Amino acid sequence: MSEVVNLAEKFAGFSEHWAPRIVARYNDNDIRIVKVEGEFVWHSHPETDDFFLVLEGVLDIELRDRIVTLRPDEIFVVPRGVEHRPVARQGEVKLIVIEPTGTPNTGDAATATQVEAL
Amino acid sequence: MSEVVNLAEKFAGFSEHWAPRIVARYNDNDIRIVKVEGEFVWHSHPETDDFFLVLEGVLDIELRDRIVTLRPDEIFVVPRGVEHRPVARQGEVKLIVIEPTGTPNTGDAATATQVEAL
Repeated sequence: MSEVVNLAEKFAGFSEHWAPRIVARYNDNDIRIVKVEGEFVWHSHPETDDFFLVLEGVLDIELRDRIVTLRPDEIFVVPRGVEHRPVARQGEVKLIVIEPTGTPNTGDAATATQVEAL
Repeated sequence: MSEVVNLAEKFAGFSEHWAPRIVARYNDNDIRIVKVEGEFVWHSHPETDDFFLVLEGVLDIELRDRIVTLRPDEIFVVPRGVEHRPVARQGEVKLIVIEPTGTPNTGDAATATQVEAL
């Protein structure tokens, strides 16, 4: 049965960067939390939009033609197929991402971070 | 093109209770924000899970066999088909809900609140 997910408790349970944890499932999507710092890789997801909600810190999402800056309580959805690179330039960022279950976080199973359930 | 959604700005744009606003789309889902106070109706969604993330306030989600209490930064997913009734007993609650585009918020198009895009 579904249980309450307390995000502060879940974030306290790990410290690795760019290593998402699944904290809930909604239909066929993972609700993932992640801590990030520094640069990720350029990638895209051909089959799915990419949902970001920043909870703490400042996250740049670089697109090929602009940079979108997200502060706490801001959402951005990268449309499917759009190349992007998340970069946390100002220290650690905590965020929620939502992706269909099984989606590799780099857009490529060969390079993706293993996603663990918490 | 997708834009940054600042939740505080979006919440400042309306005051009605139980009247969700669509602030973003992710694949075929609406990201909806809503202010609630008091009791909603008992209902279920046969075809979809129901995602809740409380941002401010305290929300009870009554199930037939228990009551789940959500505080800020807590998530609960009501599984599809499970009867539930959200109740905000301690003043206004601000939350994010996610539902497949077109899902009536009462589980029944005849009684559902009209959902507007903000």
